[in-house]
Amino acid sequence: MDLDSIKSPEDIRKLSLTELDELCGELREALLGKLSAHGGHIGPNLGMVEATVALHYVFDTPDDKIVFDVSHQTYVHKMITGRIKAFTDPDHFDDVTGFTEPRESEYDLFTIGHTSTAVSLAGGLAKARDLKGGKENVVALVGDGSLSGGEAFEGLDFGATLGTNFIVVVNDNDMSIAENHGGLYDSLRHLRETDGHGEPNYFKSLGYDYRYVAYGNDVAALVEAFKDVKGIDHPVVIHINTQKGKGYAPAEADRETFHFGAPFDLSSGNPLRISEEPDYGDITATHLMKLMKEDSSVAVITAGTPGVIGFGPVQRQLAGRQFIDVGIAEQEAVALASGLAKGGAKPFFGVVSSFLQRAYDQLSQDVAINNTPVVIGIFYATMYGMNDVTHLGWFDIALISNIPGFVYLAPTCKEEYLAMLDWAMKQTDHPVAIRVPGVKVIERGEIFPTDYSDINCYSLDQKGRDIALIAAGSFYSLGEKVVELLKARGYEPTLINPRFLSGTDDELLRNLEADHRLVVTLEDGVLDGGFGEKIARFYGTSPMKVKCYGIRKEFADRYDYASLARENHLDPAVIAGEIENILTK
Amino acid sequence: MDLDSIKSPEDIRKLSLTELDELCGELREALLGKLSAHGGHIGPNLGMVEATVALHYVFDTPDDKIVFDVSHQTYVHKMITGRIKAFTDPDHFDDVTGFTEPRESEYDLFTIGHTSTAVSLAGGLAKARDLKGGKENVVALVGDGSLSGGEAFEGLDFGATLGTNFIVVVNDNDMSIAENHGGLYDSLRHLRETDGHGEPNYFKSLGYDYRYVAYGNDVAALVEAFKDVKGIDHPVVIHINTQKGKGYAPAEADRETFHFGAPFDLSSGNPLRISEEPDYGDITATHLMKLMKEDSSVAVITAGTPGVIGFGPVQRQLAGRQFIDVGIAEQEAVALASGLAKGGAKPFFGVVSSFLQRAYDQLSQDVAINNTPVVIGIFYATMYGMNDVTHLGWFDIALISNIPGFVYLAPTCKEEYLAMLDWAMKQTDHPVAIRVPGVKVIERGEIFPTDYSDINCYSLDQKGRDIALIAAGSFYSLGEKVVELLKARGYEPTLINPRFLSGTDDELLRNLEADHRLVVTLEDGVLDGGFGEKIARFYGTSPMKVKCYGIRKEFADRYDYASLARENHLDPAVIAGEIENILTK
Repeated sequence: MDLDSIKSPEDIRKLSLTELDELCGELREALLGKLSAHGGHIGPNLGMVEATVALHYVFDTPDDKIVFDVSHQTYVHKMITGRIKAFTDPDHFDDVTGFTEPRESEYDLFTIGHTSTAVSLAGGLAKARDLKGGKENVVALVGDGSLSGGEAFEGLDFGATLGTNFIVVVNDNDMSIAENHGGLYDSLRHLRETDGHGEPNYFKSLGYDYRYVAYGNDVAALVEAFKDVKGIDHPVVIHINTQKGKGYAPAEADRETFHFGAPFDLSSGNPLRISEEPDYGDITATHLMKLMKEDSSVAVITAGTPGVIGFGPVQRQLAGRQFIDVGIAEQEAVALASGLAKGGAKPFFGVVSSFLQRAYDQLSQDVAINNTPVVIGIFYATMYGMNDVTHLGWFDIALISNIPGFVYLAPTCKEEYLAMLDWAMKQTDHPVAIRVPGVKVIERGEIFPTDYSDINCYSLDQKGRDIALIAAGSFYSLGEKVVELLKARGYEPTLINPRFLSGTDDELLRNLEADHRLVVTLEDGVLDGGFGEKIARFYGTSPMKVKCYGIRKEFADRYDYASLARENHLDPAVIAGEIENILTK
Repeated sequence: MDLDSIKSPEDIRKLSLTELDELCGELREALLGKLSAHGGHIGPNLGMVEATVALHYVFDTPDDKIVFDVSHQTYVHKMITGRIKAFTDPDHFDDVTGFTEPRESEYDLFTIGHTSTAVSLAGGLAKARDLKGGKENVVALVGDGSLSGGEAFEGLDFGATLGTNFIVVVNDNDMSIAENHGGLYDSLRHLRETDGHGEPNYFKSLGYDYRYVAYGNDVAALVEAFKDVKGIDHPVVIHINTQKGKGYAPAEADRETFHFGAPFDLSSGNPLRISEEPDYGDITATHLMKLMKEDSSVAVITAGTPGVIGFGPVQRQLAGRQFIDVGIAEQEAVALASGLAKGGAKPFFGVVSSFLQRAYDQLSQDVAINNTPVVIGIFYATMYGMNDVTHLGWFDIALISNIPGFVYLAPTCKEEYLAMLDWAMKQTDHPVAIRVPGVKVIERGEIFPTDYSDINCYSLDQKGRDIALIAAGSFYSLGEKVVELLKARGYEPTLINPRFLSGTDDELLRNLEADHRLVVTLEDGVLDGGFGEKIARFYGTSPMKVKCYGIRKEFADRYDYASLARENHLDPAVIAGEIENILTK
């Protein structure tokens, strides 16, 4: 059929099963066209073509409600709910986000980007329906990879008690981003191997009725299964076995690489552009491999995102039992690290800034209160990282720096990062987090100290007068540029690398009062609760003026880097001008 | 035997099983003596007498390692690991904390107070052992109530993959603090009813070998079961069925009341002191009951602690399906609330400040990004609340206020709390958190506004000059006292109730610059990342001085309220004196 004629799921509900099957082929082809030209989540969407079509075919969306976990697999959902042009017309590719987005469509219920939340959110919709006397079906769709997150368990455990219509579709493609890890996955495999008849059955153990669909890419089988549970009066799990990357040979063959990707050549599957640039993941992996070789008690932990720290299949195999993937389970990663450290091992947990949020209590209770020397490397902690609203990397300073006992280090470049990493892995006095300095690797060619045990000791890199810039981590370069501009205007600015985000260097700050009138802080993070505010409070009753630069508290979405920088005055010339204004006022 | 002669588990390992049984009786009697005179966790400890004795009898502690979940059930553990006097000698009752504490004993591995962490922490110990070539047993003891927390699931899921010695003892007394909630609990009941032979089996579904002990208060049965798994070469769950409150009739009969309690009369079980004081829990429950009656879409949520919001068995029954206990699962509580709000219901989630930390990512992603009008009431958010290091209620302002979109309200008294609660439950524009003002109920007898939709609009309660106090929430009274002292010294201070912790009233603050020189902030929370720092940053480049009062960033433990207040200068006279010093400098 003419895909562009699909305005809503109504248009596909009149099709026969044979036509529906043909439609799936056409949707997949169109999807591949956009994916290869634009990039995105490849494998998850290819695997979900039939299930998505069958869901909308059977259920009366938008009255019936579907909540997609992570929602990175909703491209076909968008194609058949009024947004087809964003997939068939290159001029409109960026009209839609890569996740569900209520501002786009009434078929999208939540803005979602983190894993393991859909069952909980859908449980709330179902409970609201029951309180209000509604009759609609409520469906949560969750992938097997997401089941490793604690929130998914909590959501399932509660959902089973609803006692009313609640349909959980488990999209089992036997993969997380990389392979799955956890005892649960053996029992999922056993269910697949027994056509759903085996025991133990995780879903039944949580109180669910249970159905199994062996051919999760067979639209007719799915339609039958969904029809069977439509209007059901109690909680049920439909476990469907899909194939990640279905219908595209390179994606079927290498499911990890094709989970998410940049534009690629459709015939070969090869990426159109190969980056030759070094990457903090690779740098980290190379360094950790060396440390692991030297010390068999060094353990490297990931929560389902090994690629972030440069651990591809080769590195994982080489690291052997010193590499631990806990699945998408950040709480476990942090608490496990604490146990490892207490047991005398040397854990490093590498994690994306936005995902570390899932483990605040573990950072506080399991680690900081116990003062276990875990090391946490925090990646994409910058406004120049991921710009989807669900993946912003700006909130980690406010999150970590205000936990007592945590040492939060902010290296300014590759060399300082590795120096700090070495110290952190060697020492046993503190839990240490290291903010990997941005996305683009900066090398300074300098030698950095090997010892950071003098906690909160800032580095006075250039001593001047009147104005001092405290430029943290990835914004150190911004500070250097401001210094150059101020020098050109005849000022003699002081430049400080604070190195520590979690406290103030009281002696250094006090000494500045002798010959400085203004301190400017620069941080690549949200201003509220951040580093600069500690400096502002420090000087609260002093004549010293303080001006904080960073990002204002907001949820920006798919923003343009330059615009967000401009809106927040994060430009060397603007900052230099504002400094001059303050000094001459 | 003479209990005071027990210096270490070695002393009990030489006993026969009959003597061991007698010892359990003596330990229970001594325990009841302290519990009745001193208060504490009653039911959990009475139920664990035999299991604790059996664990130390069989395993070679401290070489073998036991991690207790929540660790509120470790009184007998402390009695037989060198701390017997803290239970038999009233002069030494306070020598020990109510939780495991490594500073007390090498038998205590972690400082623990939140639920659901033990399996994860023990998993780390086991993995460290494996990396270092150790041979010791690693045991995690976790209660059935704690299994509802996502971290426990994540810990079990990972632990199953260790492939080496890992022993999880599930202490199933069929109770959380109140009754259990969640689909899992039906299957645990089924296991108890089938003597462990039934399916589905949750633990097997996560990959564990499994044993069941029907008589979890029979020390001989436990010794046999533990001996059977000592030295085991793979992960195993020992599911033991114990009785909460075992051996004390009143505690067996009313397991919820006797979970934790103040001193009581041993013969009757009646509390020695009955508080006649009103309590924010009761006030909240009474008010919510009214709202629920008026609107059937109002839903009240707890995460396993209904008593905190005044919902005893009577209120729970009356509220019916409008009352939701998700189990100890704060992530679920927050995400569920978001789903409820999205579905048009009106959710209120009442939670202890320290436990809300477990749901930071849900506050940010599931709620704030989706801007769902959930209402969260935060209890014991004060330095005058719980003073165990694991239960500090001071970190919520830094946690919540820095999440974009969250409105965090700080009422100063009962009347303002209820006014804000009414507004929050009515409006649909924002997620709202309300900081219940301290522990002691303050009534002002004033009428407060019914509308708080003018976000970040502070209330200028007394207009003066030179010095302005911004006194937030439970510290408003402190601000009033400082104002009185300053007036007595001839000053005309301004007093502001900020009402909002999550932002600045820029116009009001700007206006103060005309005739004020100093702004003082008072907040009942940690200074770092808190409310005062927002004010300090606001005035950073202004001549206005800012002095922030609050609690310095540290993990205080079992502190004396007055001492902590003194250390932080939180005394009206001290503050007034410091203000005068600044003004006259």
